[in-house]
Amino acid sequence: MKQHLDAIFRPRSIAVIGASNKRGSIGHATLANIFRAEFRGKVFPVNPTHEVLHSVKAYSTVLDVPDAVDLAVVIVPKQFVPATLRQCGEKGVRGAVVISAGFSEVGGEGKTLERELVDIVREYNMRLVGPNCFGVVNTDPEVSLNCTFGKTFPRVGNVGFITQSGAMGEAIMNQAEQLGIGFSKIASIGNKADISSNDVLEYFKDDPKTDIILLYLENFGNPRNFTSIAREVSQTKPIVAVKSGRTILGAMAASSHTGALGGLDVAVDALFEQTGVMRVDTVEQLFDVAMTLSRQPIPKGNRVVVVTNAGGPGILATDALVNYGMEMPSLTPATVKELKTFSSADASFSNPMDMVAGAGATEFFKTLNVVKKDKSYDSIMAIFVPPVTVDELEVARNIYAALADTDKTVQACFMGAGEQSLGIRYLQDHSIPVYIFPEAAAKALAIIQEHRHWLKLPKGKVKNFKVDADRVREIVAANLDRGNTAIVGADAMQILDAYGIQVAGYHYAYTIKEAVVVARELGYPVVMKVNTPPIVHKTEAGGVLVDLRSESEVKSAFTKLRKRVGTLKAGERFSVVMQEMVTGTVETVIGMTTDPSFGPLIMFGLGGIYVEVMKDVAFRTIPLTAQRARRMIKSLRSYPLLTGFRGTAPVDLSVIEETLLRVSQLVRDFHCLSEIDLNPFIVSASRERCRVVDARLIIKDESRCN
Amino acid sequence: MKQHLDAIFRPRSIAVIGASNKRGSIGHATLANIFRAEFRGKVFPVNPTHEVLHSVKAYSTVLDVPDAVDLAVVIVPKQFVPATLRQCGEKGVRGAVVISAGFSEVGGEGKTLERELVDIVREYNMRLVGPNCFGVVNTDPEVSLNCTFGKTFPRVGNVGFITQSGAMGEAIMNQAEQLGIGFSKIASIGNKADISSNDVLEYFKDDPKTDIILLYLENFGNPRNFTSIAREVSQTKPIVAVKSGRTILGAMAASSHTGALGGLDVAVDALFEQTGVMRVDTVEQLFDVAMTLSRQPIPKGNRVVVVTNAGGPGILATDALVNYGMEMPSLTPATVKELKTFSSADASFSNPMDMVAGAGATEFFKTLNVVKKDKSYDSIMAIFVPPVTVDELEVARNIYAALADTDKTVQACFMGAGEQSLGIRYLQDHSIPVYIFPEAAAKALAIIQEHRHWLKLPKGKVKNFKVDADRVREIVAANLDRGNTAIVGADAMQILDAYGIQVAGYHYAYTIKEAVVVARELGYPVVMKVNTPPIVHKTEAGGVLVDLRSESEVKSAFTKLRKRVGTLKAGERFSVVMQEMVTGTVETVIGMTTDPSFGPLIMFGLGGIYVEVMKDVAFRTIPLTAQRARRMIKSLRSYPLLTGFRGTAPVDLSVIEETLLRVSQLVRDFHCLSEIDLNPFIVSASRERCRVVDARLIIKDESRCN
Repeated sequence: MKQHLDAIFRPRSIAVIGASNKRGSIGHATLANIFRAEFRGKVFPVNPTHEVLHSVKAYSTVLDVPDAVDLAVVIVPKQFVPATLRQCGEKGVRGAVVISAGFSEVGGEGKTLERELVDIVREYNMRLVGPNCFGVVNTDPEVSLNCTFGKTFPRVGNVGFITQSGAMGEAIMNQAEQLGIGFSKIASIGNKADISSNDVLEYFKDDPKTDIILLYLENFGNPRNFTSIAREVSQTKPIVAVKSGRTILGAMAASSHTGALGGLDVAVDALFEQTGVMRVDTVEQLFDVAMTLSRQPIPKGNRVVVVTNAGGPGILATDALVNYGMEMPSLTPATVKELKTFSSADASFSNPMDMVAGAGATEFFKTLNVVKKDKSYDSIMAIFVPPVTVDELEVARNIYAALADTDKTVQACFMGAGEQSLGIRYLQDHSIPVYIFPEAAAKALAIIQEHRHWLKLPKGKVKNFKVDADRVREIVAANLDRGNTAIVGADAMQILDAYGIQVAGYHYAYTIKEAVVVARELGYPVVMKVNTPPIVHKTEAGGVLVDLRSESEVKSAFTKLRKRVGTLKAGERFSVVMQEMVTGTVETVIGMTTDPSFGPLIMFGLGGIYVEVMKDVAFRTIPLTAQRARRMIKSLRSYPLLTGFRGTAPVDLSVIEETLLRVSQLVRDFHCLSEIDLNPFIVSASRERCRVVDARLIIKDESRCN
Repeated sequence: MKQHLDAIFRPRSIAVIGASNKRGSIGHATLANIFRAEFRGKVFPVNPTHEVLHSVKAYSTVLDVPDAVDLAVVIVPKQFVPATLRQCGEKGVRGAVVISAGFSEVGGEGKTLERELVDIVREYNMRLVGPNCFGVVNTDPEVSLNCTFGKTFPRVGNVGFITQSGAMGEAIMNQAEQLGIGFSKIASIGNKADISSNDVLEYFKDDPKTDIILLYLENFGNPRNFTSIAREVSQTKPIVAVKSGRTILGAMAASSHTGALGGLDVAVDALFEQTGVMRVDTVEQLFDVAMTLSRQPIPKGNRVVVVTNAGGPGILATDALVNYGMEMPSLTPATVKELKTFSSADASFSNPMDMVAGAGATEFFKTLNVVKKDKSYDSIMAIFVPPVTVDELEVARNIYAALADTDKTVQACFMGAGEQSLGIRYLQDHSIPVYIFPEAAAKALAIIQEHRHWLKLPKGKVKNFKVDADRVREIVAANLDRGNTAIVGADAMQILDAYGIQVAGYHYAYTIKEAVVVARELGYPVVMKVNTPPIVHKTEAGGVLVDLRSESEVKSAFTKLRKRVGTLKAGERFSVVMQEMVTGTVETVIGMTTDPSFGPLIMFGLGGIYVEVMKDVAFRTIPLTAQRARRMIKSLRSYPLLTGFRGTAPVDLSVIEETLLRVSQLVRDFHCLSEIDLNPFIVSASRERCRVVDARLIIKDESRCN
């Protein structure tokens, strides 16, 4: 794998097939960029109608190139791409970057054509980036590869960037240049016919030049692979992602754009939670985060001190920081004392520390030198609004001079300094991230801080409970034999029971006599529900009688229900379900749904209105660990209702946690299950009184049941 | 009033007191800006130690100026400001802009000094902007006034800007310049010792050069004035505001910065809802909104069509638009048919309409010409990602050429076009707002659309119910006579009853005999609660017995409660409160709280966990109209619980609405009330079964009770 991607990112020779002399064409721009970057290996332009391209001898086909070729950059019209790739295969080329468009992204014949490309690269053991991509970049001075056709030339840096959209790639490179962000490698992966974001992510993991990774994604080819790769990479190299297609309409646009189904947004969030990928809402935020991440250490905690020469921006910073969950402890008395020895009498010695408008380079230098020693802070934000009286380059120099040696995370804001600001350029060149508005800096810091928190979280292990999988297999098989793919009632309860989940007894009775016997076994009080004929919304239809306390009440209940259902269909025999009466503190729901591209998602929420009206539910990918299950429970807005509200006893959270883990194990063991509902799962203060009262399991893909 | 502000914004002659020759000083920068703007009237530099300033004769004091002076710009050290202003008064100056700092914003003596300034301007009937401000600007070519000390020179435009922070003012002017936004007038109001944002707002209302108004606020001097002024101005001139000090910590910083107490954030939101002011979160958003508002008509509806040459940004736009509540209807068949006559076969004829990467100026022109005729849309967003093969200036020209005559709202995004983009500059100069990222454009459009919605809302009238205010006055007086400022129990219920609010009967009984009589009058079932001795959390303490259905149950309940309370204090006599048993569908809470600077806020929410755990409450300023009360009710997340959930009948919303209005009237009539709690207010499907069960009213300022 690595070698193949080395052929893409570290080729020693390139054939540029479809290179052109025509200014403004992609073939021209790509070849020009390769030369402009001063690629360290050999470049062979290929074009059947030209002898010279860019003052260099051109060849009719790649087969005519006299030397070995590692990488082919392909820019020919789409119908010629298959033949071109075949020639590359014959030539022994190892990697191809196909910039040409008109494949799966346009549907129809384009899809067929793309499949042909994949067949060819498989046949010749080549690897392929694209088609429909923007090219790749490797700024390593030993390689110096830029086979994009963009106008913007990325500077050298430690950011690896993977983008699914070529257009976004160009826009993003331009934006990065303006912010002074440098790249190690860039891969525009286009339609991902062969090489996916997962492949590149894995490659970046071991790339010594790459410290942080930015992703622009429209969909996930293989979310499960992504999960395991991203989770591993995140431990050492932070990943920041914009995943577009958040809304349903957005997902539809993504679908028509890339020919792949966009995932449910809740699934993406669940996936990112599991992998530690920092999700941002916009491309702007992608850069805001990248600026600090690529230049500064991850903060050691969430305590920030703001030093400013203007009150207004200080307030904006405070608002934003606190709103995003950061803390702003007051200056310590020792710090204040030291600051007072040189500060203006008008200064405000709180946090934000407002040095007031007269403050210039010297004040910034002295003040920052004092606060950087204060152990109450993990990060420092220096805000400067350039008044006419102060030289902003001098201020920038002094901010850097004061903070160059601190191990705190440093950010600067130069509000209104203007695009051509020398101060901004100076800080960028000296590894201090600099923002125009403090809100952006604050948001970026908060996202990074959240990631730090994730890194520190105990990851936990996936627990394997002793369960009776054979029994589940039998019940599933028996249901499938009957052509039944929706397992309900006693069967559903027995499956849960086989996985060690506490369920309320679920017994059928066909006669009054049977009902009396069952009630005695269950112990009073009991609940009785109509079983046959099947009734939807039993409670509303009067098909449920609760709190039956004696034999005579059971008897009359049976008769009452029999009367209520009236005439039966031919072959139907009246029956009831009987259960012990479960009275707990809180009704909850545990569920599982299968996302078409992300696979199973476990759901947890409080029953009734909390799920249905307040939409207060949490989704997580599997497998769950105890730690993740606990955080999942705590993430609910209605969580306080579980910990004792208005004098009720707190429920036993460990039972909820364990039940989530057991459901997770059931889902892992039985891939044929596509939906599960434990509703209600009644929970209480004591473990014994936590019980699933009803359940339903749906089988989608029978073939995956073994 | 207007004349006084004319002295500030339209002076015929200016004295610049404290002007200086020293480059880099504020006195130098301000005088230089006045000359650079080519002020249309006369300028008189004043400085006791210079004879010539900027090649112009200088005067020792303003009294030495030979001509009349309309406006004094004051830049002298703070301790000289009072004397300077006094001289201005003697000279007959009408307006003063005091740039000097060191007044109330630094507290202590600064506050005293500022009060002195106010006394002087009152004495001489002058008006004062500042102190501690950045100056004022009027770009009207007939005036051409710029007495700021900033580096950025604002261009002429239709945006009026009021800022409380001078530093923010400079930052904002710089940002505006980069976005090509022009101003009509700018006022940096500083400490607002005399002229407030309300004054300037009122002035802008009648200013023919100002079409939209931007506000940067840290606090409200007089929120009630702001309400009436802003609501009126909003009808014709949209107001967009950044109000900083959102978080409590932020509010504290605001307080130390400006010497004024920041309001509760919920109060600010309520105020803006009432006035139609568009609140934005960040200064960036302020501009994003201003760009479209100042250049384009307010959209007629929320339907947007996106035309793009790149799929990725199209998805980002769709995500953002849908997420912010905009709609993206599909292209009509007629439109698709027409587009197909000239579009690339690879194009995607949905919304977003993706013309694919090859599309250039001609395709933009033709496509936009077709979609602008489609009546399914109110706004058009044109997204262009400049590929190397396309001339972006040509694209900009063609976007303008196609859309110059449409009455739809138009926005453009040039992603990655770069700072020096000629295309961006061209669109800015031709009244088409242009963004780098589509999310920013979408957010701005959504905020403007929300404002359009507000403009169209029926405003309603404040209803005056027939009430018995005298009875309330008596009850209040009687309580105050007893030294009681917390009115509870029967008194509270009677106050509500006097205002036509349906309450559960509230009767005391001291003996079993009385209890039996009361129960008979109320009608069974009844509720009995301990009244004396007073018990906090009665229900938890077992001090409440419900659903008493007969005389014997009432008798034994009385005895039981008497036993439970045990020994009484000397002088205490055991008593109970008895009420009819109110059983409704939903428990709600209506309340009122008084914000120190915003005054009374009415609160509504669903009882118990919805208020306490889910924090699902709505606040509104008074006076409420029926329309605002209805929207307030609907704004709750838990609103579906009121409209019938799981087969329960919907409650009578008109009773909630009316009760909110009656509480609003009570609050308007009795300024002495600082807090009200109607908890619970039980509501049902039928009007008769909606009842306030308990209430509590707090009197703060006795003197305002009449």
